[in-house]
Amino acid sequence: MADEVVLLDFWASLFGMRVRIALAEKGIEFEYKDEDLRNKSELLLKMNPVHKKIPVLIHNGKPVCESLIIVQYIDEVWNDKSPLLPSDPYQRAHARFWADFVDQKVYAVGKNLFSKKGEDQEAAKKDFLEIYKTLEGELGDKPYFGGEIFGLVDIALVPFYSWFYVYETLGKLSMAAECPKIIEWAKRCLLKESVAKSLPDQKKVYKAFVEWFGVE
Amino acid sequence: MADEVVLLDFWASLFGMRVRIALAEKGIEFEYKDEDLRNKSELLLKMNPVHKKIPVLIHNGKPVCESLIIVQYIDEVWNDKSPLLPSDPYQRAHARFWADFVDQKVYAVGKNLFSKKGEDQEAAKKDFLEIYKTLEGELGDKPYFGGEIFGLVDIALVPFYSWFYVYETLGKLSMAAECPKIIEWAKRCLLKESVAKSLPDQKKVYKAFVEWFGVE
Repeated sequence: MADEVVLLDFWASLFGMRVRIALAEKGIEFEYKDEDLRNKSELLLKMNPVHKKIPVLIHNGKPVCESLIIVQYIDEVWNDKSPLLPSDPYQRAHARFWADFVDQKVYAVGKNLFSKKGEDQEAAKKDFLEIYKTLEGELGDKPYFGGEIFGLVDIALVPFYSWFYVYETLGKLSMAAECPKIIEWAKRCLLKESVAKSLPDQKKVYKAFVEWFGVE
Repeated sequence: MADEVVLLDFWASLFGMRVRIALAEKGIEFEYKDEDLRNKSELLLKMNPVHKKIPVLIHNGKPVCESLIIVQYIDEVWNDKSPLLPSDPYQRAHARFWADFVDQKVYAVGKNLFSKKGEDQEAAKKDFLEIYKTLEGELGDKPYFGGEIFGLVDIALVPFYSWFYVYETLGKLSMAAECPKIIEWAKRCLLKESVAKSLPDQKKVYKAFVEWFGVE
C-alpha cells in the first residue's frame, strides 16, 4: 500500500514551512490542506486536540504534531535518502540544540518586534539582532549549519527568511547590513528546490501581515 | 579508553534529575558536580556559553546541553541496554510530543503557583490541575507513559514529583485527591532504583525553597 500523507498547514506558517521542506527533501508526495486559523477544521481539532495547532502530519491516518518532531519523524521513516540529521550521536545532539535554540528564541524575538512599542521596541530590536548574530557565529564559514550538508537546523531557521521583509520594515533594520552571512546562507538554501518551493515570497507575507494586523 | 562522564548539575533541578535518572538507567558512572547557581563555575560558562544553564553532560570533554537532548544523547550512545525511547518512529514521535508538552507546560504552571497572587494564583491553580489532568488522561491505565516500559516521558515528568510538596503547600491543593493516578504512577517510578536515587526528598526541596524565596 502506498503511504497516505496529509499535511494540515497554513501557507505563511514558519513551522509549516519546515515540514514542507522536509517532505520535499525526501521526495514524498502529500496532500496539502490549508487551514483557516480563525475557523479551524474538525480534522485539525481531532488530530491535534492538545495544542490545536498546525502543522500536523497525518501519515496513514495517524497524526504527528510539533514541527521539529515531525521533521525528525520524516527523517526516521523515510531513511533511504537525504538524511536530515547526522548519524553521529554528538552531531545529532548539536543539531537538536541549535534547532531548539531557534524554537526558544527566534520566533519570540521576531514577534516582539511588532508587538512592542517605543523603548520596548528598541530593546526588542537589540535582542533580535543579538539572537541572529549568535546564529551567525554558530554558522561561521560553513555553507550550512551542520557543515556541508543541509539539515535540521537549516530547516528550522530558513522559513524565517520569508518573514524578513516584515521584520525589516517594522523593526527599521537591514538584515543584509547587520547579518550578511545569514542572508548569504538563506540565499544558498533557496537554491535548493525543496526550500524555494516551500517558502512564500517575502512581499506576499508582508502584504498579508498588514491585512491581518492593520500595521504599516 | 573508559568514557569520562561529568555532570554539571544542581541537586534540586528538575532538569538535572532527568539526566541523573537516564545515566542510572544505563548504569553509567559519572562525576557529579553541584553548581552554585548564584556563582556559576568557569567550567559551566565555558561548556554552555549560550544558555549558561545546568544540566550539562560533559562526555570525553565535549558538552551536551538541554535535558531532553541529553537524555536522547545518552540513549543513542549507550544503546546496548535499557532503551529510553521506543524503536518505532511513530512511538518515538509520540514520546517526544509528550516530553515536549512537559517542557512547554508543566514547569510554567508550577512556577505560576508561587509567583502569582490572589485571583491570578487561583487561575494558576486551575491551569496547574488542568495540565496534570491532561497528563493523567494520556497515562490512562498504563503503568508508564510509553506502556509497559519506563522511558522518555516518565523521565521528563517524574522529577516534578519531588516538588509536589512545594506545589501542594503553596497552591493549597492535594495531588492525591486531584490526580490519584499521577501519584500512583510516580510511586511506581520511585520503585526503580534509578529514580529513587536521583530524586531528592520532597520536604528537603520545600525547606530549601523556603530558604531561597522566604515564602511560607
